Amino acid sequence: MDGLFPSDEQLGLLTDLYELTMAAGYYVQGMARWPATFELWVRRLPGCRRYLVTAGLEQAVHYLTHLHFTAQEIAYLRAHPSFAHVPQSWFDYLRTLRFEGDVWAVPEGTVVFAGEPLVRIEAPLDVAQIVETYLLTTLSMQTMVASKAARIVWAAQGRGVVDFGSRRAHGPQAGLLAARASFIAGCSGTSNVEAARRLGIPAVGTQAHSWIMAHDDETEAFRRFGTVFPQACTLLIDTYDTLTGVRHALASGVPFQAVRLDSGDLLTLSRAVRCILDEAGRTDARIVASGDLNEYRIAELVRAGAPIDLFGVGTEMVTSRDDPTLGVVYKLVAIDTPHGHAGRFKLSPEKRTYPHAKQVYRQRDAQGQFLGDRIALATEPPPDTGNWQPLLVPVMRQGQVVYPWPDLHAVQRYCQHQLAELPEQYKHLQGDEVYPVEISTALQTSVPS
Amino acid sequence: MDGLFPSDEQLGLLTDLYELTMAAGYYVQGMARWPATFELWVRRLPGCRRYLVTAGLEQAVHYLTHLHFTAQEIAYLRAHPSFAHVPQSWFDYLRTLRFEGDVWAVPEGTVVFAGEPLVRIEAPLDVAQIVETYLLTTLSMQTMVASKAARIVWAAQGRGVVDFGSRRAHGPQAGLLAARASFIAGCSGTSNVEAARRLGIPAVGTQAHSWIMAHDDETEAFRRFGTVFPQACTLLIDTYDTLTGVRHALASGVPFQAVRLDSGDLLTLSRAVRCILDEAGRTDARIVASGDLNEYRIAELVRAGAPIDLFGVGTEMVTSRDDPTLGVVYKLVAIDTPHGHAGRFKLSPEKRTYPHAKQVYRQRDAQGQFLGDRIALATEPPPDTGNWQPLLVPVMRQGQVVYPWPDLHAVQRYCQHQLAELPEQYKHLQGDEVYPVEISTALQTSVPS
Repeated sequence: MDGLFPSDEQLGLLTDLYELTMAAGYYVQGMARWPATFELWVRRLPGCRRYLVTAGLEQAVHYLTHLHFTAQEIAYLRAHPSFAHVPQSWFDYLRTLRFEGDVWAVPEGTVVFAGEPLVRIEAPLDVAQIVETYLLTTLSMQTMVASKAARIVWAAQGRGVVDFGSRRAHGPQAGLLAARASFIAGCSGTSNVEAARRLGIPAVGTQAHSWIMAHDDETEAFRRFGTVFPQACTLLIDTYDTLTGVRHALASGVPFQAVRLDSGDLLTLSRAVRCILDEAGRTDARIVASGDLNEYRIAELVRAGAPIDLFGVGTEMVTSRDDPTLGVVYKLVAIDTPHGHAGRFKLSPEKRTYPHAKQVYRQRDAQGQFLGDRIALATEPPPDTGNWQPLLVPVMRQGQVVYPWPDLHAVQRYCQHQLAELPEQYKHLQGDEVYPVEISTALQTSVPS
Repeated sequence: MDGLFPSDEQLGLLTDLYELTMAAGYYVQGMARWPATFELWVRRLPGCRRYLVTAGLEQAVHYLTHLHFTAQEIAYLRAHPSFAHVPQSWFDYLRTLRFEGDVWAVPEGTVVFAGEPLVRIEAPLDVAQIVETYLLTTLSMQTMVASKAARIVWAAQGRGVVDFGSRRAHGPQAGLLAARASFIAGCSGTSNVEAARRLGIPAVGTQAHSWIMAHDDETEAFRRFGTVFPQACTLLIDTYDTLTGVRHALASGVPFQAVRLDSGDLLTLSRAVRCILDEAGRTDARIVASGDLNEYRIAELVRAGAPIDLFGVGTEMVTSRDDPTLGVVYKLVAIDTPHGHAGRFKLSPEKRTYPHAKQVYRQRDAQGQFLGDRIALATEPPPDTGNWQPLLVPVMRQGQVVYPWPDLHAVQRYCQHQLAELPEQYKHLQGDEVYPVEISTALQTSVPS
């Protein structure tokens, strides 16, 4: 019986088989150590996204610093029929293989757009190839969730949003990753206790319908909860009837901090509950709402002035339900062969790519608001007029982390700044103004016509 | 830096905070050890599913058998403000808490429908509550993917389907879980090497566009690959131009087993490639197709007679893209209080539930084809006329596994039988015949009107 948990000790084979066959092929052909440059970017935004928020870099770098092949893993490959003709020396070599390359990346919590490299890997061809699958899965999942969460937090217009999604995430680890990504994008906490413990962020939540249903009487259920949790207590009032529920909460004598609504017409119910609380002198009591919420429903509730103080969001956020994938790609853009350095690219109209290592420069106005981005060759200087700053920074050099790793609260604050600097017209949930991203002249002319 | 991997040693806090506050509340109120029955089921099928295939039970049971709380985890809870008034004796008690209850479940690979209990937990109220979040996430994710994969395999009508989705899964563990679930539902292998190693299933795949692009010449790229992998070699022919690509593959002299198409009009291209291969005397060479495939596109290709032998499916399958969540719920259905045994249920029209432990009986015709299901009280005997069989079987008793655990190949064969016994009219991708599931009279009358 297997929990199917990844672990630091078993990272070598967490990749697609073809990455390893190609690595062996490069080795036999004497190409394995050719210096290669790969870049990772989102090919195009999902139709329902207007910008992205990067996340997942910490887990990607964790992988790169821990990647190795155990004797057991190597034995598995040795016995796999595809590798029957691969010489023993490759398997010996694999035992010592580590990621000792350079990494440039856009810091987590940065607002980015389609086509902009988020990560650049400069490493020997074989190891740069092997890491593809893991980098794609970890960066695309967290970036997808952070991008969705940013929309939800924006829709809440200053009211709090918390992550309730672990039970709907794609497995136990996905729940941890989603809690992390949604916190970066502005959620104030998560219901996932292990995520909260590991990440040092608030764990939130108090009771479910089953607590109420385990008692014969709702008022008694509240009263008993209050004796154990007199502080920070949120009572769930919709098990039988929401308006009766809030009266039972008041009658219980529990000094609750908040009540939670989890079903029904949240606008009408929140207004009625607010009245009942206020009439009872509990103007300080907060109202939490949950139940199939997304950015559109939250925006409607906020627009209508629903007296809701905190939104608990689950399924829609952690699965990015309206588009549960990001078209992230990882492509070879340059390689040093014995004949010299050569750019690599594809010309096909749908999947066009540009060669060589790149940098993204972002221009701000005097107030710090984003004006537009320029994708350029990494060797180009920044444009010499206007206030332009590079997005990609050095993260690893020769396999060592050179980036001063921020804690997650700092990443969240940085992300808040980024979102504040993104002009409002690009943040509306639906809208057709497209943020300007241009390709530098030097990059355009690097492709033979 | 944290990879955010779950592990056997850190399962206690992989749950929502409210499960733990409720557990502490039950303890203080003297209710923690009251025998409780919870059931887990899918409330309604996603609009684009007509049946489900269960998966994830092994990981759920792995969790139940390994669940415990470490000193470090308990210290975290002790310091959390919500638990400030919880007595020390609960934290001491938590140190010894294990899952020692009974579990009934529908075996993995079974065809099931909305409303049917997939798992029944009979355990003390506190521990039965704590396990909710983990059971939901692990069973819903794999059942969702297996159900999607079954449609894709059905659409392929006997042609092979393999899992190429790890890079698009929601994190590294989700890739492992998706490989497992899709294999149960009939995929013949996965590109994820770690999944293949751990699960004992075939690892598939040979080369990506980057192999071709790392060489100056496509024919040379093929030739060099063939020298290292003369057996089981699949050449990727669409990097520049598919029809030129297949000619280069032939010209390379590599004794390839298959060619792969990853873009373009797969019907037209597969036909043209088949002609070129046949004219060259390579009638034995197989054609593999991949690239944004789902059950609808595969059905179209099969209907049109595209000469494709194997489909590689990624994003759409492992994220269940058209509905990336299942409305799985876990509800208290009965509890033994000091006043006696009592059923628990909700009457609200949208979220109606039935009380008490249940069994699902399935009726077959003389040929073994499913006729319909009946959800009944667990204490009811099977209907006495017709060929009815129970779906839920004992899996754990008093915390010990009592189910002879099948290997994954056996689960896959069982699932093939199940799908063969599901009448064809319920398997079409779109259709409106609804499989009959009835509620037994005794169960209906167990709810006070």
